[in-house]
Amino acid sequence: MSFTSLELRSLVTPDGELRLTLEDVPVGDPGPDEVILRVDAAPINPSDLGTLLGPADVTTFTADASSGRPVATAKIPPQAAAFAAPRIGKSLAMGNEGAGEVIAAGENARHLIGKVVGALGGSMFTRYRKVNADDVLAFPEGVTAKQGAAAFVNPLTALGMLSTMRLEGHSALVHTAAASNLGQMLNKLCLADGVELVNIVRSQDQAAILQAIGAKHILNSTDPDFHEQLIAAVSETGATLAFDAIGGGPLAGQILGAMEAALVAKTPPTTPYGSPVHKQVYVYGRLDRSPSVLPSSPGMAWGIGGWLLFYHLKRIGRAEELKLRQRVANEITTTFASPYTREITMTEALDPAVIRAYQRKATGEKFLLLPSQD
Amino acid sequence: MSFTSLELRSLVTPDGELRLTLEDVPVGDPGPDEVILRVDAAPINPSDLGTLLGPADVTTFTADASSGRPVATAKIPPQAAAFAAPRIGKSLAMGNEGAGEVIAAGENARHLIGKVVGALGGSMFTRYRKVNADDVLAFPEGVTAKQGAAAFVNPLTALGMLSTMRLEGHSALVHTAAASNLGQMLNKLCLADGVELVNIVRSQDQAAILQAIGAKHILNSTDPDFHEQLIAAVSETGATLAFDAIGGGPLAGQILGAMEAALVAKTPPTTPYGSPVHKQVYVYGRLDRSPSVLPSSPGMAWGIGGWLLFYHLKRIGRAEELKLRQRVANEITTTFASPYTREITMTEALDPAVIRAYQRKATGEKFLLLPSQD
Repeated sequence: MSFTSLELRSLVTPDGELRLTLEDVPVGDPGPDEVILRVDAAPINPSDLGTLLGPADVTTFTADASSGRPVATAKIPPQAAAFAAPRIGKSLAMGNEGAGEVIAAGENARHLIGKVVGALGGSMFTRYRKVNADDVLAFPEGVTAKQGAAAFVNPLTALGMLSTMRLEGHSALVHTAAASNLGQMLNKLCLADGVELVNIVRSQDQAAILQAIGAKHILNSTDPDFHEQLIAAVSETGATLAFDAIGGGPLAGQILGAMEAALVAKTPPTTPYGSPVHKQVYVYGRLDRSPSVLPSSPGMAWGIGGWLLFYHLKRIGRAEELKLRQRVANEITTTFASPYTREITMTEALDPAVIRAYQRKATGEKFLLLPSQD
Repeated sequence: MSFTSLELRSLVTPDGELRLTLEDVPVGDPGPDEVILRVDAAPINPSDLGTLLGPADVTTFTADASSGRPVATAKIPPQAAAFAAPRIGKSLAMGNEGAGEVIAAGENARHLIGKVVGALGGSMFTRYRKVNADDVLAFPEGVTAKQGAAAFVNPLTALGMLSTMRLEGHSALVHTAAASNLGQMLNKLCLADGVELVNIVRSQDQAAILQAIGAKHILNSTDPDFHEQLIAAVSETGATLAFDAIGGGPLAGQILGAMEAALVAKTPPTTPYGSPVHKQVYVYGRLDRSPSVLPSSPGMAWGIGGWLLFYHLKRIGRAEELKLRQRVANEITTTFASPYTREITMTEALDPAVIRAYQRKATGEKFLLLPSQD
């Protein structure tokens, strides 16, 4: 029994176009320690869009079904040509994570046949995917592929933030872009674990999303007294660690400054160097690609730096990672449940109107791809 | 035998003036584990000037000797009043470090009598100083107080930078404001230890200072091709750690960007997250108090943060600190020698023209106070 998959591919052509297609790809037989998964559901994460749409101007997408299969083509603007050049002629697969039923397995993995499992590792926007049995996450009985589709990227990121907090000796958190799918998950996790979380959002609508799920500390950075609210919230919670999805602009520096102000007000320093308590902001996203601006005020015990889930998992080691994964499997329908606003087939994923919708990355909107339908 | 010291003091008055005076201060007898030091020499470090001159407008200093002792008085500008307010009415001592002969000692420290020792710990701009015997650094026979005056702040900072480099797994360094007294010392130390050092300066005069002491990599940040030179130098040396005395402006971010560019050119990344090698800039000074501006380009494995000698010494622990101190004592006339451009008495230190001279903090200029003369 050998499988051929239908796979979503993204190609940059030599004449400056980006082309999305559905390709036949041989999957081959499973080796002794491998399984073949029918991918029933895969979330379209912001981290997938870079490969999927990359340098394309999404307003220019057009559809063509003359070959019998859907093809979507967009123009690459001249200013993105250099960025796109290394990809020319390479048909790229994508999809960080997904879930589905195990439909074939090698001799050491037969116990997984018929089970619904999740998998991480790229190329999940495909109908059939061969993976190592060690790498799949088996869900408890009754969990569906749609429920388990997003068991890695956001859940492990939220758990990784808490594990960073504990490793580095902090006791409470600040989170920006806090109404995101990840932010809602982090909020549920912090409530479950009794960790104080200061949620920073940019609109009243986003604040309402967090209010509805019981968030305790919600600040709107567009409020005129945001800076005073921020000092009060970090003082009350004792937060000295922040995770920032925005990256550019003044916010990361404002958070460091507010932490220092709160610490200095509680314990006036005995040296000219400010509070000796370390204050840290980790930048894990770049919603704003403009430069970051840091004030000169956070004392001498401060840091700001990049944070990436894969680096963090390497730091904590495989045994610790497996504990985090098992917690995700156990709580996939509660703490780590992901709501979707729309389910789409692979054919729909190549529809220009649908592409523009999932490309928006609007807060609260999340698309689930169903690779084995249509 | 009980001593009274003559001590340099800085006072902010309720009517908005800063006043420098010489005060009689009782020193008392040494306890069993204490020694009394005649402070023969103490450097005026940039870190002393904050307390010494603080919020004063140095152009307004006037001298008054009508009391029989010199007094220097300056106005505090209105915009500095809030900063100066906590100091009103408090007569502050200062002077981070100094050296001199032990002239009295408690029963457990008599072996130190007659020896030239260095001491750290504040209030060294004084004629006699009582300190714990454990805290002094005894120099080899023949070292003078002038040679040993600056055995802590700059030498331990330079050694602390190298110990940070080794602790955090880097193998070469970048240093800004590199022609400073500290920068010259770091350069000598790196040459002695075989560590590659990229020296960044801001003028041809500063470059010449470093050339004269054998620096290998010297970059002038005002050169039009500075960014290209920087990428080439960090590529050649493999530097992934920088110590920055400037703090504000674009330089720290430029260094991170150049490190990333050099790493990516050597090993093209296999993920969209840039090079996985960690790049770090520590800000240990704030010559530029404007905000720092960081680009969005250094990948995801980067950090920038404050660095303070005292926090670093706490991190490495007392045993490791004592090893660093012993190395300073052994090499105080070679690797850790400090050149001075001018020696001044306490009376001269209160002369308005002299105050303006040591306040300039010009590269290459360094003042040595001789508290036991005049």
